[in-house]
Amino acid sequence: MSSSRFTYLGPEGTFTEAALRTLPEAATRELVPMVSVPAVLDAVRSGEAAGALVPIENSVEGAVTTTLDELAVGEPLMIYREVLLPIAFALLVRPGTELSGIKTVTGHPVAQPQVRKWLADRLPDAEWESSASNADGARRVQEGQVDGAFAGEFAAAVYGLEPLVTGIHDAQNAQTRFVLVGLPARPAAPTGADKTSVAIWLGDDHPGALMELLQEYAVRGVNLIRIESRPTGEGIGRYCFSVDCEGHITDRRVSEALMGLKRICPAVRFLGSYPRAGMTAADVRDTRPGTSDADFVTAADWLNRCLDGRG
Amino acid sequence: MSSSRFTYLGPEGTFTEAALRTLPEAATRELVPMVSVPAVLDAVRSGEAAGALVPIENSVEGAVTTTLDELAVGEPLMIYREVLLPIAFALLVRPGTELSGIKTVTGHPVAQPQVRKWLADRLPDAEWESSASNADGARRVQEGQVDGAFAGEFAAAVYGLEPLVTGIHDAQNAQTRFVLVGLPARPAAPTGADKTSVAIWLGDDHPGALMELLQEYAVRGVNLIRIESRPTGEGIGRYCFSVDCEGHITDRRVSEALMGLKRICPAVRFLGSYPRAGMTAADVRDTRPGTSDADFVTAADWLNRCLDGRG
Amino acid sequence: MSSSRFTYLGPEGTFTEAALRTLPEAATRELVPMVSVPAVLDAVRSGEAAGALVPIENSVEGAVTTTLDELAVGEPLMIYREVLLPIAFALLVRPGTELSGIKTVTGHPVAQPQVRKWLADRLPDAEWESSASNADGARRVQEGQVDGAFAGEFAAAVYGLEPLVTGIHDAQNAQTRFVLVGLPARPAAPTGADKTSVAIWLGDDHPGALMELLQEYAVRGVNLIRIESRPTGEGIGRYCFSVDCEGHITDRRVSEALMGLKRICPAVRFLGSYPRAGMTAADVRDTRPGTSDADFVTAADWLNRCLDGRG
Amino acid sequence: MSSSRFTYLGPEGTFTEAALRTLPEAATRELVPMVSVPAVLDAVRSGEAAGALVPIENSVEGAVTTTLDELAVGEPLMIYREVLLPIAFALLVRPGTELSGIKTVTGHPVAQPQVRKWLADRLPDAEWESSASNADGARRVQEGQVDGAFAGEFAAAVYGLEPLVTGIHDAQNAQTRFVLVGLPARPAAPTGADKTSVAIWLGDDHPGALMELLQEYAVRGVNLIRIESRPTGEGIGRYCFSVDCEGHITDRRVSEALMGLKRICPAVRFLGSYPRAGMTAADVRDTRPGTSDADFVTAADWLNRCLDGRG
Repeated sequence: MSSSRFTYLGPEGTFTEAALRTLPEAATRELVPMVSVPAVLDAVRSGEAAGALVPIENSVEGAVTTTLDELAVGEPLMIYREVLLPIAFALLVRPGTELSGIKTVTGHPVAQPQVRKWLADRLPDAEWESSASNADGARRVQEGQVDGAFAGEFAAAVYGLEPLVTGIHDAQNAQTRFVLVGLPARPAAPTGADKTSVAIWLGDDHPGALMELLQEYAVRGVNLIRIESRPTGEGIGRYCFSVDCEGHITDRRVSEALMGLKRICPAVRFLGSYPRAGMTAADVRDTRPGTSDADFVTAADWLNRCLDGRG
Repeated sequence: MSSSRFTYLGPEGTFTEAALRTLPEAATRELVPMVSVPAVLDAVRSGEAAGALVPIENSVEGAVTTTLDELAVGEPLMIYREVLLPIAFALLVRPGTELSGIKTVTGHPVAQPQVRKWLADRLPDAEWESSASNADGARRVQEGQVDGAFAGEFAAAVYGLEPLVTGIHDAQNAQTRFVLVGLPARPAAPTGADKTSVAIWLGDDHPGALMELLQEYAVRGVNLIRIESRPTGEGIGRYCFSVDCEGHITDRRVSEALMGLKRICPAVRFLGSYPRAGMTAADVRDTRPGTSDADFVTAADWLNRCLDGRG
Repeated sequence: MSSSRFTYLGPEGTFTEAALRTLPEAATRELVPMVSVPAVLDAVRSGEAAGALVPIENSVEGAVTTTLDELAVGEPLMIYREVLLPIAFALLVRPGTELSGIKTVTGHPVAQPQVRKWLADRLPDAEWESSASNADGARRVQEGQVDGAFAGEFAAAVYGLEPLVTGIHDAQNAQTRFVLVGLPARPAAPTGADKTSVAIWLGDDHPGALMELLQEYAVRGVNLIRIESRPTGEGIGRYCFSVDCEGHITDRRVSEALMGLKRICPAVRFLGSYPRAGMTAADVRDTRPGTSDADFVTAADWLNRCLDGRG
Repeated sequence: MSSSRFTYLGPEGTFTEAALRTLPEAATRELVPMVSVPAVLDAVRSGEAAGALVPIENSVEGAVTTTLDELAVGEPLMIYREVLLPIAFALLVRPGTELSGIKTVTGHPVAQPQVRKWLADRLPDAEWESSASNADGARRVQEGQVDGAFAGEFAAAVYGLEPLVTGIHDAQNAQTRFVLVGLPARPAAPTGADKTSVAIWLGDDHPGALMELLQEYAVRGVNLIRIESRPTGEGIGRYCFSVDCEGHITDRRVSEALMGLKRICPAVRFLGSYPRAGMTAADVRDTRPGTSDADFVTAADWLNRCLDGRG
C-alpha cells in the first residue's frame, strides 16, 4: 500500500537517507532509495509512495536545480516538511589504505566544491572523478575502481570501507536542506514558525517586473527567505523565480500577497506552507506593524462599516 | 423638513450658488446660504439640511483648507458629488463708474491671486481690500465703501451693480471644485468613473512613512488624483494627508488599498466614493493589468483551491 | 543702502515682527513692515531690502500659500534662515471693555481657526469679521469698528488697547514658521542640522510620478520633512510640490538626490539650504548607513579603480 | 608567451570550443582545453593564458554555478566578451550501432535535462550514466563502455564515432552563454549595446535588502538582465547575488547605480562591462527619460549653478 512507503534520493547511505531518518513520520515507513530526483518524485506522483525526500538547497553549492525544476514544472506536488542537515564528509577507503596511497578520489559533483580546499591542502595530487552519488562513489571504492570516496561516515559500514578522515567540510556551517513532498492536499496547520514556497513566472521581461513581484510581498510586510531564478527553457533571459517567504498561506498577509502575485504574474504555483526547520514561534522576528491577522480583521470590519455609511 | 433643504457657502450670488444650481438634485430644494464653511456643514450635521455644497479646491489657490479640515476632523460627513466650475470674474461697479475712477477694489482673499495680473496691468494703483466673500464685496460696492468688486457676473443684478469688465482670470483653465456633502450613508453605486476620498494620519514621522502610504495604492494599481498635506495641529512637522484616488470603494483594488492604509496608519477616515465631475467610464484610463474585480475574484478562487490542496 | 534694511509682513505688532526680532542679524537693520507677502518679497527683488521675513507654515492652518507660490514661481529668491515662533493670541479690547460686552471680534483669517474653540466656549454669540492682519484688526478695535481683536499681546501697546485674555490657542504647540529670504547667492555653510527646500514640477500626471519623486530622496537615504502640493494654475489636477528635506545641498546624498529630481522632472527650483530652527547637529537622527559624504567618496574611489581595471 | 594562448573548458570537441571558435580574437591564439572551470580560470590568473572561455548560463539548466562562484570569490578576473551558442545534441555511436541496440547512454550531467524528453520518447529503457563532459562521454563510447553519447555533432570526428541522430534538444531556443575572461584591466569602450556584471553581497538578512539593491538600479533607470542568488557558504539563508544590467560602467546612470550599491552593500565586485552578444545599439530599448549621459551633465551643471547662487 502506497501510504506505507517513502522514497528518497538514494542509494542507501547518502545524506538524504540520514535526513529522512530524522523525521518521526519516517520511523514507521518503508524507505525506498531511488536513482534520481525525478524517479523519487514520480513514485509519489504515481501513488507508489506517500512521500519523498529530496535535497533542495545546499549552503555551499546553492539550489538543487533538478528539485526546483521538478517542483515548478513537473506534475504538481507539495512540500510538507523541511529538514536541515549539517554536512561533513568522511574520506572512505578500503581497509588498510593510507593517505599517501590515494591517487584518485570520487564523490557526487556537489561534494567536490565542499572538499576542494581540503583536497588542495592534503591530497593536492589526487585526481577527482565524479560519481552519480556519494554512495555510488563508495561502491566504486569498494570495487577498487577508485582509491577514496567522500561520503557520509554512515556509508562506510554499508560498503565495507573505513573512514580514513572524518569531519571534512571546507565551509563552516555547511548544511543541506531537504524537503518532504507529497501529492497536493490541504497544508498542515500553521505552527507560528512556517514558510511558504511558490514558483512564479514573470510575464515579460519589462524592467521592474522583479521589483513588482517583491513589492507584493513587501507591502504586506511578508519577509522573503530565499529567491532563486531559474530559466524557463524559452531562451536566455526568460526566468521563473522560486521564492520562499515567512509565514503560512492561512496568514492573511501571506494569502493577500499570494493573490497579488497571482493577479500580476501569468503563472504562480503554490508549493506548500510548512514548518521551518529548527525554528519555533519564539524564534520568528516580529512582522511589520499592521500585518497580523487581527489587523486584517479590524481593517475588513472598518471597510464594511464604510460601505454601510458607518465608517 | 430637513431633506428639502441644501445649504451652501453664501451669500447669494457667489460661485458656490452657481455651482449648486448645476446639480439636478438642487432643482427641488430650498437653497440656503450660510456665512462660513463650518456653518454650512454644521447645518447638515444637525439635520437642518440634507446636503451642503462647499468649495474644496481651486486651480489657482489650491485646497480650501477649512473644508479639508472640517471633513477630516469635524463630526463625520461624506462626499456624494463634486462639481467643477470654470472661474471668471467680472469687475462690478455702481452704474456710471469708469475704470479711471476706481481707487479701491475688493473681493474674497481667494479671488485676489486670480486677478492679480489683471490688476497690475489695468488698475496698477487700485488698492485691494479683502471682503468676507465675493458677494459681500459686491454689497460693499453697493454701499459705496469700495469702488469695484470682483465677483461672478451673475452677482451684478442681486446688488444693483453693473459688470464693467467680464471674463477676468489670470490663469487659463481656472476652475473651482465643489463637493456636495451629507451625513454618512451607503455610497452611491459606482459609475465606472469614480473617485474615492480619504483623510490619513501618519503614525510618526519616520522617514518613508509617506512612501509606504503611497505604496498601498500603487501596489494595487490604484492611481492617485490629488494629495494634500494638512497640519494636525500638533506642531510643525505633524501632518495628515487628504488623498483622492481613482475608483470606487466597491472596486476590489480600492477596498484592498483602503484596508492596507487602515492597517498601517493610526487613523484613516473614509470621506466618500462619488462620480468624477466631467468624466464618464469611457474617459477613465485603463488600470494596471491584474487589478480588475475579475482578477481579484480569479485570484481568490485560486487561493481557495490552494488551501484545499487543489492549487 | 539696501543692505541696511529688512522688510517683513506688517503691520508693526504682528507675529512676523516678533519672529524677525529673534534673529541676531535683525538687530542692526532697519525693519520695514509692508502690506503683503508679494510686496515684502518684491522689495528684496528690487534691491530695496537685503532680506525679508515672511510666514511660510502654521501648525494649525498649514502652508502660507502665497509665500510658497511666490518662492516657487516669482522672480527667484533663496531662503537663508527659518524662525519658529510659538503662537498664542491675546484678545485685545479698548480699556474698560468686559467680556460680556463683546459682540464682534476680528483678526486675520488665519487666526480664526486657532481661536475657534475658544470662541465657541467663551463668546459663542460673538460675530467674526476678518481683517487684513491681526494688527489691522487691533486698529479697527481702536477705531471702535469692532469690539475685540485677536492678536499678539505685544500689539496692545501699539494701538492703545489692553489684553483682556491672553494665551489663547486652540491647539497645543501652535507654531508659525517664518523664513528669511534674500536674492540667490551661495548658501551658508552647513551646520550639521540643515534643511534644503525645493519646488518641483511633475511632468505629466502619470500614476506613480509622485512615488518616483520621493524615491529620488529615499534611495539616497535623504529624509523628507515636509511635502506640500500646490496647483500650477493650469487646471484642477496639475500640481507642483514644495518639499523640504533634511541635509544641505553640499551633502553628497542631498546633491545626488537633487540632480536626480532635476533629471526626471521638467522643472526644479532650488530654494535654499539653511539651518533648521531649534536643532543642532546633535539632534539630527542618523542617516541611513552608506549615505555619508565619506561613503560617497569611498564609492567614487572604488568606481575609479574599476574603470582602471583595479576594482 | 601568455598572450598567445586562450584556455577553455575542454576537452576538445565540446560546445565551449565551438563557442570560442566564433570569436575573431581566437583565430590567432593557441586554444588549450583544460579539465575544469577552476583550472581554465587559474591559467589566466597565473599568466599562462591571456583569456579563458567558460560557460556561465544555460537556457535549460540555468547558471553554471562554478563559473559564477569562481568569478565572485576567486582571485579577481574580468569579463570582456560573451558568446551565445544555440545548443543541439547529436547522439554519437560507434559506426554500425542502431537505435535498438542502445542500452546505455551518457553525457555531461547538464546535458541530461536537455535530452530527457527525447530519451523518454525514443529510448525509454536506456540507462543514463553521467560523464565528466560531453566529450568524455564520446570517449567512453569510443572505448566501448557505453553505447551512445550526447554531444555536439562536431565531436564525432574527434572520437571516430558517427552521429546517429542530430538536432536533439528538448527545449526550443536552447542556448548556452559563455564568457571570455581575463585579468582585470580597463573595460573596452562602450558599443551602445553593453552589459555590466557585478557580484553583490547583502549585509544582513534584513527584510527588504534585496528590494534596496534593486532600487539602486531602478531609480537610475538601469534595466536588469539577470539576477541569480548564490550561497555565500556561511549557512542556509546567506546569499550573494550575481547581477547583469544593461549599459556600460562609463554610462553615468550605471556608474551612479554601482556606487549606490557599493555604499549600501558590504561588498560589491565589478566583473566587467562588455558588448551584449547578438545585439547592436539599434536593438537596445530606450532608457527611462532623464537617464542619459546628457541628462546627467545637465543636472550636474544645474547643481553647480545652485551652489553658486545662480540656480
